[in-house]
Amino acid sequence: MTNKVITISRQFGSGGRTIGKKVAEKLGIPYYDKELVDQVAKESGFSHEFIEEIGEYASVTSSFLFNIAVSAHPMGLIDTMSVSDKLYVCQTNVIRDLAAKGPCVIVGRCADFILKDRPDTLHIFIHSDMEHRAERIVRLYGETKQTPQKRLQEKDSKRKVYYKHYTNCNWGEAENYDLCLDSGTLGVDKCADIICDVALMP
Amino acid sequence: MTNKVITISRQFGSGGRTIGKKVAEKLGIPYYDKELVDQVAKESGFSHEFIEEIGEYASVTSSFLFNIAVSAHPMGLIDTMSVSDKLYVCQTNVIRDLAAKGPCVIVGRCADFILKDRPDTLHIFIHSDMEHRAERIVRLYGETKQTPQKRLQEKDSKRKVYYKHYTNCNWGEAENYDLCLDSGTLGVDKCADIICDVALMP
Repeated sequence: MTNKVITISRQFGSGGRTIGKKVAEKLGIPYYDKELVDQVAKESGFSHEFIEEIGEYASVTSSFLFNIAVSAHPMGLIDTMSVSDKLYVCQTNVIRDLAAKGPCVIVGRCADFILKDRPDTLHIFIHSDMEHRAERIVRLYGETKQTPQKRLQEKDSKRKVYYKHYTNCNWGEAENYDLCLDSGTLGVDKCADIICDVALMP
Repeated sequence: MTNKVITISRQFGSGGRTIGKKVAEKLGIPYYDKELVDQVAKESGFSHEFIEEIGEYASVTSSFLFNIAVSAHPMGLIDTMSVSDKLYVCQTNVIRDLAAKGPCVIVGRCADFILKDRPDTLHIFIHSDMEHRAERIVRLYGETKQTPQKRLQEKDSKRKVYYKHYTNCNWGEAENYDLCLDSGTLGVDKCADIICDVALMP
């Protein structure tokens, strides 16, 4: 049994969610994805669709910390924040609450940054080359008008901007994670095995 | 037995060389470090000390590709290149020759980029937080006038500039490697075990 909270950040189409689910199953710990969205929906009043759409990809422009600073007046913090910032604050609270319950797997949503000072965490980044990811998203989600390469670039770019905005760190920089794995060269199953192996370290 | 050429890039003080040696020993394959410098010294005429000092840390200013472009005239390529560029070209040739001999471990010197299109390679990045690395360099190399934090920042910064100059890629960005490992949280032995495990995959 692991005592770790495992966060998985991932490039779009790299199989990070599948790997997260496999890890949770193998270790017998909860995998939070739908439950996280349910909880955020309950606390924020936003719809599930909105949270799925905006929770990692918002087109953010002004500084979050600036918004926090100018919002910290007697009118109250939350009321003067942008919709995206409100959602981020809500996601932060839900992720902290879920992690406090015990070992689990949480995918995306800046969970690595939100839990960076928490002991007994394991932060993972999953990536892969364009070719493997393009093949994967076409197989799983079908074709669209846009080429798969264009879809990947757009999603990655939005995640990168979102992460930078809320954490002031660079998404996908190795030093932010305990373990970064190329799911294209290693394969989804091997990635899950390595993560479980490391999670079970004393 | 592995059929892989393993390149190890590393933050200064993260234990990347120690991990490289352990991996080579466990897999029974050559670890190129002194031999690489010997070979570069023989082919370039530069001294061992100069190669150790400049081979990963040069203070490079103008674009390598620009230098290549302007140097490609009838006067000959090598003669009009900077000392740092000559050393890079020589290191590139030596690294390609060593890799062509068969499975081995090569540490640093942009080997990951130089061999990026070669099949049967495994590219690793080793990093760790400032605290673990500071403790390590003081233990291994002793105290100096500079604080260990300052020494680490300077070395990392020079490696980053050198790598960007010669590869136009970002040093330490997860997607450039098959596997990135935090030697501070995982430990040197666990890092070596994970690399060997992956190297032995069919």
